[in-house]
Amino acid sequence: MKFTKMQGAGNDYVYVNGFVEQIEDPATLATAISNRHFGIGSDGLVLILPSETCDFRMRMFNSDGSESEMCGNATRCIGKFVYDKGLTDKTELTLETLAGVKHLTLNIENGKVNSVRVDMGEPILAPKQIPINLDETSVINYPIALESRKVNITAVSMGNPHAVIFMDSLEELDIQKSGPKVEHHPLFPRRTNTEFAQVISPTHIKMRVWERGAGETLACGTGACATAVAAVLNGKTERKVTLELLGGNLEIEWSEADNHVYMTGPAVTVFEGEYLL
Amino acid sequence: MKFTKMQGAGNDYVYVNGFVEQIEDPATLATAISNRHFGIGSDGLVLILPSETCDFRMRMFNSDGSESEMCGNATRCIGKFVYDKGLTDKTELTLETLAGVKHLTLNIENGKVNSVRVDMGEPILAPKQIPINLDETSVINYPIALESRKVNITAVSMGNPHAVIFMDSLEELDIQKSGPKVEHHPLFPRRTNTEFAQVISPTHIKMRVWERGAGETLACGTGACATAVAAVLNGKTERKVTLELLGGNLEIEWSEADNHVYMTGPAVTVFEGEYLL
Repeated sequence: MKFTKMQGAGNDYVYVNGFVEQIEDPATLATAISNRHFGIGSDGLVLILPSETCDFRMRMFNSDGSESEMCGNATRCIGKFVYDKGLTDKTELTLETLAGVKHLTLNIENGKVNSVRVDMGEPILAPKQIPINLDETSVINYPIALESRKVNITAVSMGNPHAVIFMDSLEELDIQKSGPKVEHHPLFPRRTNTEFAQVISPTHIKMRVWERGAGETLACGTGACATAVAAVLNGKTERKVTLELLGGNLEIEWSEADNHVYMTGPAVTVFEGEYLL
Repeated sequence: MKFTKMQGAGNDYVYVNGFVEQIEDPATLATAISNRHFGIGSDGLVLILPSETCDFRMRMFNSDGSESEMCGNATRCIGKFVYDKGLTDKTELTLETLAGVKHLTLNIENGKVNSVRVDMGEPILAPKQIPINLDETSVINYPIALESRKVNITAVSMGNPHAVIFMDSLEELDIQKSGPKVEHHPLFPRRTNTEFAQVISPTHIKMRVWERGAGETLACGTGACATAVAAVLNGKTERKVTLELLGGNLEIEWSEADNHVYMTGPAVTVFEGEYLL
């Protein structure tokens, strides 16, 4: 089976051209190839497939074999895959995912995709839809208790729940300790992803992310979007801002025109391979 | 750069044919490619090179860029690499390493190498050479204190120090707790690798290994050899025994004829790749 190993801000997947390769049991294959000692090593498997309604369709399987809806970092890599390999010559693409249709804009440099802009949709601020158990219209800079100390959270959903906490400095952050406390805070009936953010300037935020069920990760596209939205809601930054994550930088713009959040970030081909099935 | 990803008992390296590829700075390359999110992902880089005295020469670089002397699991993979790719048609090979010349015997199945037998040399039992600070002739089933409790160790060097501890069952083992205590025990002036072993039958040992400076690993070739030697010295097994490790099985034979320890184990090609330098 031919594959391409790609990463976007440190989220790394094995990408397979489903127009050519027939994958009978992607869940089992994802588990085998994701193993970082016995397999190819990845966060999971992404299949690029024909679509009846869009330019392409993606299916994404985590390393435990479960199918996931979407990942912003992976959609960017799909944009690079289909253009660089000549599956399309369009630079505006629609992608069918289990989380709905995603719109991609490809930025080309020397005939190859250098970065991709993804329309991540509108942020959701209504507490019931996030969900967070509060009777407010929105949850902005709201104090919650983490055992002995208090932190202020801003709650935003980008299809999944996020609690954003602004700090004067990330130096003192013990994410292994604070992350789980926010994730499991009783206010969040379905737990929450948590972003710890330091505003460097009105156009630059440094952040670390604690993903629900996964712990700290190198990058989280929806988390970066939620953080940019939270920063605007708190009057801390402009609507267009660079998010500096452990795995790299993402440019986030919360458009005033259509209320959508646009994420632009890198997509990198690391190597081409042939896996011996 | 063309490469082959191979693993032996879960030790996984990127193997490069140094007859064809010119690698200018292998230390830097090893660090880049070993990264499991941004690179190929591996325990390190192995270069297969011409030798003036042997059939082949190996150089091995860890993921931190440091050069290491040898790894039993990697030597097996080299045997498979050179035969399967037609660099040799011999099934008895000499390999030049920083730890001296290694002798390999290739076992062929359907025209490909299925497993490899490596001559790991003679075990060293003299305490000064292991080194362990004791005035005995050898250290067999010797009681040492680990804080409140006592364990019995057998000390064997296979070029590097090993302390082997036999237990009735590995179920109760807390290796994160016990491993560092043995590793840093004052008896070992250069610290020690530690093997926790359960004898299942006179030809079968289950073990887990705590590697000096690395923590628990999936497999350790010299550790498996040391454990087999220790089992014979304690009258627990025959001289030919299967070692069951987390990463797979190794067959160890401590030959009565020449006192050498022979390790036979798997060598698996996982995928072929081309890295975009």
